[in-house]
Amino acid sequence: MDQPPSLSPTARTDFTRLFEPRGIAVIGASQDLTRIGGQPLRLLTEYGYQGKVYPVNPKYPEIKGLPCYPNAGAVPQPCDLAIVALSAQHVVSAIEDIGKAGIPFAVVFSAGFSEVGEAGRKLQAALVAAARKHKVRVIGPNCLGAMNLNAGVRAGFGGTMALNTLKPGPVALVTQSGGFGFGIAAISSYYNVGMSHVVSTGNEADVGALELMEAYLERDDVRILVAFLEGIQDGRRMLALGQRALELGKPILTWKVGNSTVGKQAMTSHTARMTSGYELYKAAFREGGFIEVHDNDDLVDLAKAFLPGRLPKSRKAVFVTLSGGSGVLMADHAELNGVELPALADDTVKKLKEIMVDFASAANPIDATANGYNDNFASYSEVIRTALADPNIDALITRSPRGKAMPSWSKRLVDIVKASDKPVLLNWPTSPDDNGESMQFLEENGVPCIFAPGRTVHALGALAEFAEKKRRFEQAPPPAARAVARQNLELPANGTLGEYAAKRVLSRYGIPVVGEQLLAPEAVEKLTTAPFPFPLVVKIESADLPHKTEAGAVKLGMASLDQLKAAAREVLANAKRYKPDARIDGVIVQQMASGQEVIVGAVNDPYFGPVVTLGLGGILTELLHDVTHRFAPFDARVAKSMIDDLKSAPLFHGYRGRPPLDVEALADALARLSLLVADHADRIAEIDINPLFVGPAGTGVAAADALIVVKP
Amino acid sequence: MDQPPSLSPTARTDFTRLFEPRGIAVIGASQDLTRIGGQPLRLLTEYGYQGKVYPVNPKYPEIKGLPCYPNAGAVPQPCDLAIVALSAQHVVSAIEDIGKAGIPFAVVFSAGFSEVGEAGRKLQAALVAAARKHKVRVIGPNCLGAMNLNAGVRAGFGGTMALNTLKPGPVALVTQSGGFGFGIAAISSYYNVGMSHVVSTGNEADVGALELMEAYLERDDVRILVAFLEGIQDGRRMLALGQRALELGKPILTWKVGNSTVGKQAMTSHTARMTSGYELYKAAFREGGFIEVHDNDDLVDLAKAFLPGRLPKSRKAVFVTLSGGSGVLMADHAELNGVELPALADDTVKKLKEIMVDFASAANPIDATANGYNDNFASYSEVIRTALADPNIDALITRSPRGKAMPSWSKRLVDIVKASDKPVLLNWPTSPDDNGESMQFLEENGVPCIFAPGRTVHALGALAEFAEKKRRFEQAPPPAARAVARQNLELPANGTLGEYAAKRVLSRYGIPVVGEQLLAPEAVEKLTTAPFPFPLVVKIESADLPHKTEAGAVKLGMASLDQLKAAAREVLANAKRYKPDARIDGVIVQQMASGQEVIVGAVNDPYFGPVVTLGLGGILTELLHDVTHRFAPFDARVAKSMIDDLKSAPLFHGYRGRPPLDVEALADALARLSLLVADHADRIAEIDINPLFVGPAGTGVAAADALIVVKP
Repeated sequence: MDQPPSLSPTARTDFTRLFEPRGIAVIGASQDLTRIGGQPLRLLTEYGYQGKVYPVNPKYPEIKGLPCYPNAGAVPQPCDLAIVALSAQHVVSAIEDIGKAGIPFAVVFSAGFSEVGEAGRKLQAALVAAARKHKVRVIGPNCLGAMNLNAGVRAGFGGTMALNTLKPGPVALVTQSGGFGFGIAAISSYYNVGMSHVVSTGNEADVGALELMEAYLERDDVRILVAFLEGIQDGRRMLALGQRALELGKPILTWKVGNSTVGKQAMTSHTARMTSGYELYKAAFREGGFIEVHDNDDLVDLAKAFLPGRLPKSRKAVFVTLSGGSGVLMADHAELNGVELPALADDTVKKLKEIMVDFASAANPIDATANGYNDNFASYSEVIRTALADPNIDALITRSPRGKAMPSWSKRLVDIVKASDKPVLLNWPTSPDDNGESMQFLEENGVPCIFAPGRTVHALGALAEFAEKKRRFEQAPPPAARAVARQNLELPANGTLGEYAAKRVLSRYGIPVVGEQLLAPEAVEKLTTAPFPFPLVVKIESADLPHKTEAGAVKLGMASLDQLKAAAREVLANAKRYKPDARIDGVIVQQMASGQEVIVGAVNDPYFGPVVTLGLGGILTELLHDVTHRFAPFDARVAKSMIDDLKSAPLFHGYRGRPPLDVEALADALARLSLLVADHADRIAEIDINPLFVGPAGTGVAAADALIVVKP
Repeated sequence: MDQPPSLSPTARTDFTRLFEPRGIAVIGASQDLTRIGGQPLRLLTEYGYQGKVYPVNPKYPEIKGLPCYPNAGAVPQPCDLAIVALSAQHVVSAIEDIGKAGIPFAVVFSAGFSEVGEAGRKLQAALVAAARKHKVRVIGPNCLGAMNLNAGVRAGFGGTMALNTLKPGPVALVTQSGGFGFGIAAISSYYNVGMSHVVSTGNEADVGALELMEAYLERDDVRILVAFLEGIQDGRRMLALGQRALELGKPILTWKVGNSTVGKQAMTSHTARMTSGYELYKAAFREGGFIEVHDNDDLVDLAKAFLPGRLPKSRKAVFVTLSGGSGVLMADHAELNGVELPALADDTVKKLKEIMVDFASAANPIDATANGYNDNFASYSEVIRTALADPNIDALITRSPRGKAMPSWSKRLVDIVKASDKPVLLNWPTSPDDNGESMQFLEENGVPCIFAPGRTVHALGALAEFAEKKRRFEQAPPPAARAVARQNLELPANGTLGEYAAKRVLSRYGIPVVGEQLLAPEAVEKLTTAPFPFPLVVKIESADLPHKTEAGAVKLGMASLDQLKAAAREVLANAKRYKPDARIDGVIVQQMASGQEVIVGAVNDPYFGPVVTLGLGGILTELLHDVTHRFAPFDARVAKSMIDDLKSAPLFHGYRGRPPLDVEALADALARLSLLVADHADRIAEIDINPLFVGPAGTGVAAADALIVVKP
């Protein structure tokens, strides 16, 4: 992960032969089947793999009854994958051999590369060079391998890989943490979530997590992608992957770790992996088919919920329970998870009242009461059928009854669910051992059973979120035409642009700035009329004084020519005192602006490229961190969605009798800034507009202060 | 729950004979043991209850081999509990019989009371009257009963009660939702959390949840209390219970539902239970030994974590794993859960480096790497022992290894934990079926095994939170002397006090208000000098115009006597136009105040009594809802903790070079307001000070506008 990242997608490799190899060579095969070089032989011969297995080790004529080959070149063809289980110093020449033998893929288990310091980093560079030269795509090094249960491929080692209980299914996992990631596969199987594909990416010397995620996403036997990520190289490629996921309707359940200060430190110390801040990941996740997960349960619950392949048409749902208490608590969780519980249609309520006892509640959430137990849940089933058919809702959560009638009730429920196209989730009321066969039957027939009530609602929230993103993606108009053509800029070799110079750059892209003049100190003294109506601001222009206020180089509210001239003398003297060698480019005489302050910024992130940030201004919002990000360039429609991301969004739309603010002008300025930073990403490291004043609707915006940092 | 609540604790009942009855009568006993009147007979004769069981039913001479009695009066003594399984209309006379027979407790299963409307409410009132008259304490009606596994008492009905798998242990559950609550008991047992006591409180006609919580908390066989609450009557009694929990060191794991808008609606519709807003519950929970839980897992995890009875001395912990990935993700969760990961002592790091391989990380979180697998975890155990002994940390989370060495590793871990007094939690890496016996062994020996990594960290956060509250409680100084003596107030019969009148009330309690005079309109016209330095504010004083700004009855920034007089005429005219019949008490001439705006309020909540609220003022914070509450009265020390609760707290302490604000004066004003509202809780419904201006340290505070609502 040490190379500078590339922001353009590389040419795609077809990984089919990695996932479905016709033959697999094990380089460094061991006769001891418990060792790292022995385990793959057992895994590939005892778990149903139908292709050929070729042990490679010059020491032996055969291992485990299989002919053993002296080197990769001697292995018969076709052989699509080589597992490398050698000590680090022998890996480079093995890769050369593999390439020469025409084997297109290698999975390198060996540790001792970039994770162990300078010598390892050199060895890893040599490995990459050999792989490129000999056209081998390498997974790892320092990885646990790859698995495809649909083809019996267990090209790895470790405890999980040897489990007989692993359950095949349409989930694929790409993990940047080998041990932890494979543990997830074991847990998923226990909870009835079939995961046919798992790959541990190790040091990602050659093939990275994103490339494998892309490959899995396109496969017909994968409907849900899971990613355990510490950091990725190419943020733009991740954005494209997210869009593709929406297009295909396949969610990417994403566990991004190393986000907190301590977490990031820990990650850097154990893998030397560098990455962007979590906020940019979150911005990228929001734009694509990613759904974040944060713990094991989360992952299992969401996978269960997505497995039946049904998405709700809206966030509106009905909850049906046999106990008021569980309905109340699920309603609490609904609000937290963006699930709405609308009133049911009159007709539905009427039918429900006919089915249920008098003291049951036909409001949403529906409380059928424990009376449901009196007819072996026959009426409870009718309540569910009736609620599911309601035109006001697009999804249903019910809480399963318990006891001996469960098998027959489960069958009725499956029939009800199959007769509808709305997603139905079941909150399992007790533990996995209670009516386990019914749970198995329900899940095999498209009714996910989720253990805790809050978790069930959370899973529905995730379904609704993905569905909403998919709709938004499908309905999004094409990007609007550029608001402004590419402008050539004359930027200095590097360093910081002073306020006046920075605002001239903004002006070139049509971003409004406050009225101002840059004058020589002598010219200020000679003024006979003010250049703008009073009151006015006086500032020093100097690239060497980025923090003008601290330097005493700003004076606000000058109400006369005399005050203005005195202020100019004062700021000059202050600046000279603060930093005697500061280059002074003149005195800025500026209009006082007013309106709602916002902070607008742009950075060129090494992983995600140019990004624009919007935050509410003023001391308080800085404290409360009310900010949002978008990847540049974007149009005004996207810019408006930034405004609506802010917690303080209502302020912009006429809050409590205040006039609405000029969101059109703000959106236009944001879109123009995004073009500016995208057009000049090679030269601009950072742009800061603080504050930008937003006036009432129709009166526009104005940048009152700005700063641009240029890179060489 | 229909009576108006009392705010004083009632005399306590000794519930020992309810929990450990020497004999139990079953009123309405049925020969069909599957029926509601039959189930208790089976439950009390087949699950180890050692006391006597007395079926009561005039129809039968015996049931299930037990002599059957015609009525409660015929039952032999001692009999401490009567279970009532009759239809609603027979319950009242049964309670009379029970009382006359000298049976002190009744558990009433019967439904058909306040939950079914007006007729039911009347029946419930008659039940209460009979209970009071005949000195019977009644649980229910409309409840599932009570259970004490330590005495074999299963005085209830329903599926959970009949489970053979229920596990005894030092956890007691009080639930306001019968069906859901008993389900929790079943789940807890599955996850190895023993819960000997469960009671479902039903309609709480007589005995309420709080009273039972108090009783359980004092029992030696209860170390953890769990409460599933929809709403309680007496907030002050709940506060006292919370303090007692801290004193005893017994946590109350509290699941409060019905908090969201929809949830509250649902709750009201299914139980007619009314309650205060969730914010007041949260304020009460924070002050006592309550730890909130929100889902089943939460509850199980936290109970597991508290069971060994160890509390950490601080929030500082060390995490030890075999995989960097899990360390990183637990570190992420640490930040979310208030757990700190300090650097380890030099000596610890030195020892760790001797034990671990070169590429392991001795930083916190410690990554022992998968190399720990190579010696059957012998070195991993040493890493844990060394880390646990570190003087910089007070708790440890480790992630268990997997595989065949688990039984022996578990024994070593238990020895390590027993040699320390710090809490240790184990993150179980896979599913409950993987090395289940080792999990059993570990948990029986004081090492809780929690399934997901995030959940493990969350559980440690809860331990740390409870420990911190306990320390704070133990170290809290006694309340300071009253800042001001009780003042007699002359309040109107009811209605709203105008601004000037309200501020005079505030002044009586020493709460600073802005300089102002109330003048008759004619007196304003005759002014020859301004009563205060300009600029000034002019307002109408009228109890009939609470929204003066909307009425055009406020003018700010008057800079001369002429402006002031014109403004007075204008506001008078505006007020007359806005509300022609408004009584005008005069014109207020007021100083302009400045500083940081805060909103200070007090209400007299029907359940929690007088409460004081502090919120940051201004349009933005209102939007972001930055508020906190305390129960009145309180002293300035407590008031300062309110300021620090605010998200915007840094603003008060000198944020980014601004001067610190006068927190002393603000705290003093809050404490005085708390005395005012507590002294006059019988008359004051609401006080609103908006805004109160807080100046820089040493310059004080001033109420610029105020409103008091008086109740008859």
